[in-house]
Amino acid sequence: MKKIVTIGGGTGSYAILSGLKNLSDVSLTALVSMADNGGSTGVLRDELGVLPPGDVRQCLVALSEHTSVVRALMSYRFTAGKLSGHSFGNIFLAALEKVTGDFAQGVEIASEILKVKGRVIPITKNHAELVITLKNKKVVRGEDAVNHADLQEFGVEKIGYARKVLINEHARRAIKEADVIIIGPGNYYCSILPNLIVSGFVDAIGKSKAKIIVPVNLTNKQGHTMHWSVSDYIESLERYIGKKVDTVFINKEMPSEKQISLYKLNEGDGVLVVDDFKDKRAMRLPLLSRKVIKGNKGDILRGLRSFIRHDPLKVACGIQSVLKKL
Amino acid sequence: MKKIVTIGGGTGSYAILSGLKNLSDVSLTALVSMADNGGSTGVLRDELGVLPPGDVRQCLVALSEHTSVVRALMSYRFTAGKLSGHSFGNIFLAALEKVTGDFAQGVEIASEILKVKGRVIPITKNHAELVITLKNKKVVRGEDAVNHADLQEFGVEKIGYARKVLINEHARRAIKEADVIIIGPGNYYCSILPNLIVSGFVDAIGKSKAKIIVPVNLTNKQGHTMHWSVSDYIESLERYIGKKVDTVFINKEMPSEKQISLYKLNEGDGVLVVDDFKDKRAMRLPLLSRKVIKGNKGDILRGLRSFIRHDPLKVACGIQSVLKKL
Repeated sequence: MKKIVTIGGGTGSYAILSGLKNLSDVSLTALVSMADNGGSTGVLRDELGVLPPGDVRQCLVALSEHTSVVRALMSYRFTAGKLSGHSFGNIFLAALEKVTGDFAQGVEIASEILKVKGRVIPITKNHAELVITLKNKKVVRGEDAVNHADLQEFGVEKIGYARKVLINEHARRAIKEADVIIIGPGNYYCSILPNLIVSGFVDAIGKSKAKIIVPVNLTNKQGHTMHWSVSDYIESLERYIGKKVDTVFINKEMPSEKQISLYKLNEGDGVLVVDDFKDKRAMRLPLLSRKVIKGNKGDILRGLRSFIRHDPLKVACGIQSVLKKL
Repeated sequence: MKKIVTIGGGTGSYAILSGLKNLSDVSLTALVSMADNGGSTGVLRDELGVLPPGDVRQCLVALSEHTSVVRALMSYRFTAGKLSGHSFGNIFLAALEKVTGDFAQGVEIASEILKVKGRVIPITKNHAELVITLKNKKVVRGEDAVNHADLQEFGVEKIGYARKVLINEHARRAIKEADVIIIGPGNYYCSILPNLIVSGFVDAIGKSKAKIIVPVNLTNKQGHTMHWSVSDYIESLERYIGKKVDTVFINKEMPSEKQISLYKLNEGDGVLVVDDFKDKRAMRLPLLSRKVIKGNKGDILRGLRSFIRHDPLKVACGIQSVLKKL
């Protein structure tokens, strides 16, 4: 039984975990960022003083082997009254934290109820307020503000937390015992880095003998990573984790001309991650999803963004081929 | 396997079902009033247009064989922010109704998640607005208003619904196939009668060969049933159901002097249900709970009310002795 650890949060982790769930003879552990403070999650953090449930919820749903109705329930968002905008799953996790007095314990109980294959572990139990200092000394506080900020105009000088944020002991042990660690894909500054910068993370991954696989992002984010290439992501990641990545999954399947032109039209040049990676560590695979996801009405970008993304099963096949060689 | 059907809603049903859950070789079906429009339930009805979840939730928790944490989760009430005052279990049922598009189907899924022993069935799928006309022609609309109204000053002329409310087909069938039907205990006008007055109920119970057992209330409710005796309850009930009750459970265990005097002091004379029932259908049993429940601070009455109430296991033993004779 090979031990796989994923690191991320949000929709990137959702895609990876949805695929990995189908592999047999693996043990799955999802380490999840606790920096989110936007939307329904942000309101629950503010009003109830709970840890952010949103990213954990997505990972739980991805790994849930319960019926499709129960998974839909967890993602259901209220549209009226005072509950409007809240995802039911977020309320569920907030209530569990209140009842048990401990977020991580609440997540364990949620996992049991949702028949989760594997474990979902918050990267930290501490209150985690993301703080980015730009090179012009401007400070951006909170993941939601970071998500909407233009970090590239002046460049990022430092990324950290407002207070000390320690790695969760269960997360540390999972990293230590892993056979494979998968970092990403996902929102680089908001979902990936917030895991890597918790105190104790670099030490933990440094001591781990796990193979590190990075399914590199397919598209860049406005104001964050525009014009980044595969090398840019890998070099940046390696600076943060303090060691070399073992395998880089690079998509070799081209999006359609229409997808590319629509993307470029709406997001500008530099939105596609260019493959400039000259290294044997690259594994070039067909990783593109062909499923068409409908965007919200009037939200062209959101619809577009979901056009070019990883196919869960294709990524899982790639991971399996790595596992076979271990 | 004997088929037991309970009829009620709220804390009365909670007590009965918590006890019956421990009987082996029985199938349990809880029929639940859909009239509630107060508190968290009322807000969810108004804001989301869902059927009232509160009473169903209590029955689900009573019959749940899940861990105590999960049962506590269902009863957890938020105390801050926009969720303040809402019971998590109510939000859970409301979200399930939204996701499935059908309250009863949502209750089935909740039952599966909560590992419910038996079934919980809403007495109707229709929007049920309780309407009581008093003898002075004043009309009281909605269960919450009825709950707080003084019905005894002028007396009740008629109890019904604002619109036609039909019995749920699953409820009808459960009544038809039951070996034993237990009506009550509970809030007479707000939890018991709202079940008996749905269209089709009297016809269903009329055709049923089930033995009807009534664990009669121990205390009377201010403005509703003050000074009622056992006979008053049974005579009133029989008028509504159109047939004779088979067995009346009458508590023969005296509350303590202190309980009685505190009750009378706060609620006045006529709060205790006097046993005046001269009939062979009476079964006099020790039914009193000896568990002390703490009331909310500053809420003397609530604490008191919970002093004199049915013991779930003692009632269940009584039911079992009836079952043995069937």
